[in-house]
Amino acid sequence: MNSDCIFCKIVAGEVPATKIYEDAEVLAFMNLHPTNKGQVLVIPKDHVENIYGLSEEMAARMMLVVKKLAIAVKNGVDADGVNLIMNNEEAAGQQIFHAHMHIIPRFNDDGLKSWPASDYLEGEIEEWREKVRKEII
Amino acid sequence: MNSDCIFCKIVAGEVPATKIYEDAEVLAFMNLHPTNKGQVLVIPKDHVENIYGLSEEMAARMMLVVKKLAIAVKNGVDADGVNLIMNNEEAAGQQIFHAHMHIIPRFNDDGLKSWPASDYLEGEIEEWREKVRKEII
Repeated sequence: MNSDCIFCKIVAGEVPATKIYEDAEVLAFMNLHPTNKGQVLVIPKDHVENIYGLSEEMAARMMLVVKKLAIAVKNGVDADGVNLIMNNEEAAGQQIFHAHMHIIPRFNDDGLKSWPASDYLEGEIEEWREKVRKEII
Repeated sequence: MNSDCIFCKIVAGEVPATKIYEDAEVLAFMNLHPTNKGQVLVIPKDHVENIYGLSEEMAARMMLVVKKLAIAVKNGVDADGVNLIMNNEEAAGQQIFHAHMHIIPRFNDDGLKSWPASDYLEGEIEEWREKVRKEII
């Protein structure tokens, strides 16, 4: 537990949350300020800041719960689709620095837009692949 | 293999892609039309449309690779953060109906905006929790 972390305090029961699922390793609760109502957050109980530090077991356990709850969100609020979003670091929109996956119900008419797409110049995609590939450990 | 699926054809080697990682169950390649350059897609090799149908093992294997490549994307393109995004169904922005996780490098000055947040009226969050909770299997 990180004593400065609001999600750790929720795990410890020191801060209230609208919990929806809990097991030994994973907790899920309603997002207080959802993009669409019914939005759920899934977190590992152990403190880890983001995806970079998530252990193999935590990632596996977390995704099991994410799948289970993605289906429940879709069916429960009669959504037309579901986004799974994990923001890692402030530049990516992360606000609470305890790893969490957003499960966002989506509707055909909800007006939310995907980010724009760009294109690579000829030959450029291979250069970018190499930048990333050389960092795979 | 689904013979109408472009990602299945990439797995089968029938359609080219800028592959960056491959093991027995998971494939990753560069997104041709990225939000930010260096964006990677991670897919299970077996055809499954979206998160709802992903098996426990596929989800676990996929997230292991997502974690490994999220770190490589961050380091390889010197990103300030990384979004992980999985769009499920057309209403959520899914365009290829073979499950895939986007790994999007983010930069402090890239101008991409998070979706707006809303608020629940008093007592409403519990109602929405119940809608979802009764559908958990």
